[in-house]
Amino acid sequence: MKKLMNAVDDVLTESLRGFGRAHADIVEVSFDPMFVTRKGGAKKGKVALVSGGGSGHEPLHAGFVGHGMLDAACPGQVFTSPTPDQMLAAAEAVDGGAGVLFIVKNYAGDVMNFEMAAEMAAFEHATVLTNDDVAVEDSTYTSGRRGVAGTVVVEKIVGAAAEAGADLAACRALGERVNRATGSMGVALTSCTVPAAGRPTFEIGEREMEMGVGIHGEPGRKRVPLASADAIAAEMIGAICQSLEPRRGEPLLLLVNGFGGTPLMELYLMYGAARKLCEARGLTIARSLVGNYTTSLEMAGCSLTLTRLDDELVRFWDAPVHTPALRRGR
Amino acid sequence: MKKLMNAVDDVLTESLRGFGRAHADIVEVSFDPMFVTRKGGAKKGKVALVSGGGSGHEPLHAGFVGHGMLDAACPGQVFTSPTPDQMLAAAEAVDGGAGVLFIVKNYAGDVMNFEMAAEMAAFEHATVLTNDDVAVEDSTYTSGRRGVAGTVVVEKIVGAAAEAGADLAACRALGERVNRATGSMGVALTSCTVPAAGRPTFEIGEREMEMGVGIHGEPGRKRVPLASADAIAAEMIGAICQSLEPRRGEPLLLLVNGFGGTPLMELYLMYGAARKLCEARGLTIARSLVGNYTTSLEMAGCSLTLTRLDDELVRFWDAPVHTPALRRGR
Repeated sequence: MKKLMNAVDDVLTESLRGFGRAHADIVEVSFDPMFVTRKGGAKKGKVALVSGGGSGHEPLHAGFVGHGMLDAACPGQVFTSPTPDQMLAAAEAVDGGAGVLFIVKNYAGDVMNFEMAAEMAAFEHATVLTNDDVAVEDSTYTSGRRGVAGTVVVEKIVGAAAEAGADLAACRALGERVNRATGSMGVALTSCTVPAAGRPTFEIGEREMEMGVGIHGEPGRKRVPLASADAIAAEMIGAICQSLEPRRGEPLLLLVNGFGGTPLMELYLMYGAARKLCEARGLTIARSLVGNYTTSLEMAGCSLTLTRLDDELVRFWDAPVHTPALRRGR
Repeated sequence: MKKLMNAVDDVLTESLRGFGRAHADIVEVSFDPMFVTRKGGAKKGKVALVSGGGSGHEPLHAGFVGHGMLDAACPGQVFTSPTPDQMLAAAEAVDGGAGVLFIVKNYAGDVMNFEMAAEMAAFEHATVLTNDDVAVEDSTYTSGRRGVAGTVVVEKIVGAAAEAGADLAACRALGERVNRATGSMGVALTSCTVPAAGRPTFEIGEREMEMGVGIHGEPGRKRVPLASADAIAAEMIGAICQSLEPRRGEPLLLLVNGFGGTPLMELYLMYGAARKLCEARGLTIARSLVGNYTTSLEMAGCSLTLTRLDDELVRFWDAPVHTPALRRGR
């Protein structure tokens, strides 16, 4: 295992400490229990958005804490759900009296722990479960589809609505609408290594790829020979469109998300390939995002995400955001 | 070789096409010859900043084209200098009558080709050569020190000055001042693979690292056993401080730059380690940047950069910027 780290047990704490210091103008970090909040804490009268999940997917979720997106994030150990006490403490720290919306990726551990946190909550709350991964129904860690990079789209759009004053019911309904309007699929060329495990999560041959891979390196649809970028994009866009059924003329968001070990050069190449395929289907790409947003440590590969937008969703997508990982003017 | 690509010969063109389409609100891409300009082209009366170099370092340089930073960038083939005709065409496209400043990383091929372009120029021009890498004097591709991630700092600060109306002589002097005030050093845990070569640039053992590595995977100071993040940061910060001689109390910028294959989690851990070391020396980190800004394809590893700031440089660093890879409110 080759990683920039000290003791394995300290990776998360040390990384989070660096993160907090690098972005002290935007976030505050609590270490016991571990969570990240917007600098300044609770915003009175605003619905508070709280997300979280296993670490190793950075910048998700802590990198999206700030104006116009999340109020708090709870990082678990690498690829491990955070605990209910983290979630509860984070939510209490940012509850501004208008309720707390939990945004939860659909993994059994996350779902269970967020449910336990919600049961203990003395404040008004609701939950949006993301399950945008069209690759597989049920999986290693889920009953039903997995929540992957589309979660970033949900967090951005609902974050803008909450900032604009939407109430808890409206934020929840919007989050569910965006999740339904979003489909993703990934491909892995290499594995990743969880620090505590010390060896690659899975074995993969020099000429193979995992089509439909999960963001923890868990199996997808099939192990197949390495194909061209055009062929990979065609299979992914085909699967997403089959599930999402986008209509000609409606504005779409195309997100090309790197898993951590793939150069930006390849991500832009995939973006070009995916966009061309969408346009050949008569679809309109109105908004774009390309980069490492929901990673799997140093895994090579990427996912494609499409979200069916409308005027309202475009407005929320374009709204100012000021977080460590996503910034747009205000 | 496992890469998201189609034909090897098309990697650069296809990637650049995707880049141009993803960021059509900020940049325009020309393909023959190949260069990227700010949308809208020349800005009358403003000094135009033009940079360029081999591809494979994305987002450098094209990702920094836009308001408050570069006016144009010329991408060469992977790890290969762009040609004088690219540079000349790019400069002519953005020359607003106030002169063109070329920002050139110190590599023999880049220096020679930018000189040839400058000789052919009918417009007023000047050049800033960056050589912030303190790891080695002279190297595989350079006479003198190499220009690496500190180039981003030069482009940001001079870009802000040019946007604020500084003339050509002032921009050049500022660029040289920032370059002198900047020191960097890198470490590689793995190699990278140039698509046209098809195999890793160098071999490295499972328990080795290359200390002082260049951004093309070229040799640094020494091949040594893999060390802890704290020990790596200590050696790098020590070497940079020895060269830069920062003073107690003056504001410093600390940039932790990923080479492309290292998770953000590790970059933040390195940031924490480096910052602690700086503070133990009585130094003040006033500004920070953490992420993949000057990469070496999918190489695992990172570089640390320190820049000695002052009130003027802090103001330019903080100034609004709107590029594909770096954004700050305006």
